[in-house]
Amino acid sequence: MGNRQSRREVLTGSGVALLAATLPACGWAQEPPKRKLGYAIVGLGSYATRQIMPRLKDCEFAKLAALVSGTPEKLERYGAEYGIPKTHRYSYANYDSIRDNPDIDLVYVVLPNSMHAEYSIRASQAGKHVLCEKPMAVSAAECEVMIAAAKKAGKKLMIGYRCHFEPYNLRGIELVKSGFVGRPRVITSEHGFNAQPNQWRLDRPLSGGGSMMDIGIYSLNAARYLAGEEPIEVSAMESTDRKDPRFRNVEDQIDWQMRFPSGALASCVSSYSSNHNAWRVVGTDGWVGMEPATGYDGHQMWTRKGGKTEQVTLPAPPKNQFVAQLDHLAECAMNGREPIVSGEEGLRDMRLIEAIYRSAREGKAVRMTAA
Amino acid sequence: MGNRQSRREVLTGSGVALLAATLPACGWAQEPPKRKLGYAIVGLGSYATRQIMPRLKDCEFAKLAALVSGTPEKLERYGAEYGIPKTHRYSYANYDSIRDNPDIDLVYVVLPNSMHAEYSIRASQAGKHVLCEKPMAVSAAECEVMIAAAKKAGKKLMIGYRCHFEPYNLRGIELVKSGFVGRPRVITSEHGFNAQPNQWRLDRPLSGGGSMMDIGIYSLNAARYLAGEEPIEVSAMESTDRKDPRFRNVEDQIDWQMRFPSGALASCVSSYSSNHNAWRVVGTDGWVGMEPATGYDGHQMWTRKGGKTEQVTLPAPPKNQFVAQLDHLAECAMNGREPIVSGEEGLRDMRLIEAIYRSAREGKAVRMTAA
Repeated sequence: MGNRQSRREVLTGSGVALLAATLPACGWAQEPPKRKLGYAIVGLGSYATRQIMPRLKDCEFAKLAALVSGTPEKLERYGAEYGIPKTHRYSYANYDSIRDNPDIDLVYVVLPNSMHAEYSIRASQAGKHVLCEKPMAVSAAECEVMIAAAKKAGKKLMIGYRCHFEPYNLRGIELVKSGFVGRPRVITSEHGFNAQPNQWRLDRPLSGGGSMMDIGIYSLNAARYLAGEEPIEVSAMESTDRKDPRFRNVEDQIDWQMRFPSGALASCVSSYSSNHNAWRVVGTDGWVGMEPATGYDGHQMWTRKGGKTEQVTLPAPPKNQFVAQLDHLAECAMNGREPIVSGEEGLRDMRLIEAIYRSAREGKAVRMTAA
Repeated sequence: MGNRQSRREVLTGSGVALLAATLPACGWAQEPPKRKLGYAIVGLGSYATRQIMPRLKDCEFAKLAALVSGTPEKLERYGAEYGIPKTHRYSYANYDSIRDNPDIDLVYVVLPNSMHAEYSIRASQAGKHVLCEKPMAVSAAECEVMIAAAKKAGKKLMIGYRCHFEPYNLRGIELVKSGFVGRPRVITSEHGFNAQPNQWRLDRPLSGGGSMMDIGIYSLNAARYLAGEEPIEVSAMESTDRKDPRFRNVEDQIDWQMRFPSGALASCVSSYSSNHNAWRVVGTDGWVGMEPATGYDGHQMWTRKGGKTEQVTLPAPPKNQFVAQLDHLAECAMNGREPIVSGEEGLRDMRLIEAIYRSAREGKAVRMTAA
């Protein structure tokens, strides 16, 4: 009985307690403000229109205020659907005039990767707080300019790492941090899907790279947030069939290893030709793992310790990962705190992605130098 | 209903059919011989006494005929237990006189790794067929001498890769070969356990190396038999806490990647400080995986395809992996065929292990040259 009780406690009871401690929240010195901050959504592709825009109505501190698109039909369609007046619909040509719209506090850049830097910087220059999708940009140099632009504007810059707002992933971080698995030794992190042909992801001028930029970044970011420390060395191997028309100028598969200061190693998979969505942290005493790990929903988590494998089930959170992420920037904008996934976080991944590409190209391990 | 039927067929019906086709068997031109061939077991450690010797009574073509040990008490104890007469009990000093004992047809070398070469070669020179535990030896050079010695004696040399006789692993090979997962892209293979201190495995002069030699070889061999092709490049990273008294002169953890000619990549884990026992082959159409994968028993297998994850359950085989392995060498000895896991197989793993060690040491990918 005592055993049963304590097990349930691990799985749900203390899970809730830990979650409460972990879920990012910017505390309020006084009463929270009444006004919701307004987001301009830049880029009306499927992620923006299917995952982001429908969630804004559930936000506590944010709302949809404006739309930016190069396609007039999309502005018309989604403007009508969400009740966004014509004055709050922008093209890329008049995008900079968002500076004159006081209803826009926040800008969410959901464009192809190579446009992230430009549209984030212009948003910062227009005096807006920026939420930019991952990968933050297509080079570390761009990331640095983005960070500088936000700093100069005195506005926040946050990167769309939604898993940092997802309860199971947060629970995983907490379990590792609490010593549940003992000393972490091996992190495996695998992400991939079968890329459909003829899309911007497969066009290097727009994507900046292949699977690594798009889905491999989940393996990378998960390995880092689970390790709770920064990699000091990477070693990578790429495998791309250049005869496959999808992979004329971006990589298909790139797998890599990372060494952490504690001695833990990560083995990561990134693929555009096979389905993967999992991570696991194996320590000296047991493991915690998820599969699916980082999707929009359907997360499943298991732990193993003392010879027992157990599924972990968490209560539904008050805000799902999309809503929590959208609210987080609004909260940070209002109370002046730094987002938990700031531009620096995006830059760290981008430096590692560059090192991973270099290692694969040169067939050599690459040591990370202090930023 | 039709769907259900075909699914069951995949999981059990055709599983049996495929197994029948896959299970290694040396066909008999005439009636199988009546006499069982006799094994001398060399080295009476826990694997020999707990896993091998109790299984010999279940063999169809082999039996326990003699014991070889440096410890008189063990010879006395196991000799009495298995009814092995004093004339069939050998020390390492009079080991070579097994040549004069016609009841010994086969020698199973179950000694610490660094003794494999010497005791296999002496068995070949005594005119006996040899089954040698894995790793075959502690260097590729030693493996080559062992192969030459068996060849010169006109006797068989087989390496104890028992997973090649285990139904679930054979089913996995068959599923990959049959195209179930589509084109294989990513193979993950993880093996490790928490090594207890003060044992020969942690003493380089006896073990020849750390986790890679002992348990990592399962990751390596599984990746190869699942890929069905030979790696052309390896890249490795080692992580060993030299302050841990267990790891004064052998490695703890070594993880590595392998590139196969088809473009598939393998990510492999080997650890003496965390528990792992799994493999998975992810292809363009789905995956097949096992966990536990390569233990003495308790194997579990899953497949995923078309969005459905299914557990695969196979009927109990007529011979378990230990019995099938022991019988295989006896059959090969009787009908002159080459064992499916010959000395050449052991040599291939040893060349890769040397390349993995070298890659980890030099921080560079190592290309495999044609043998």
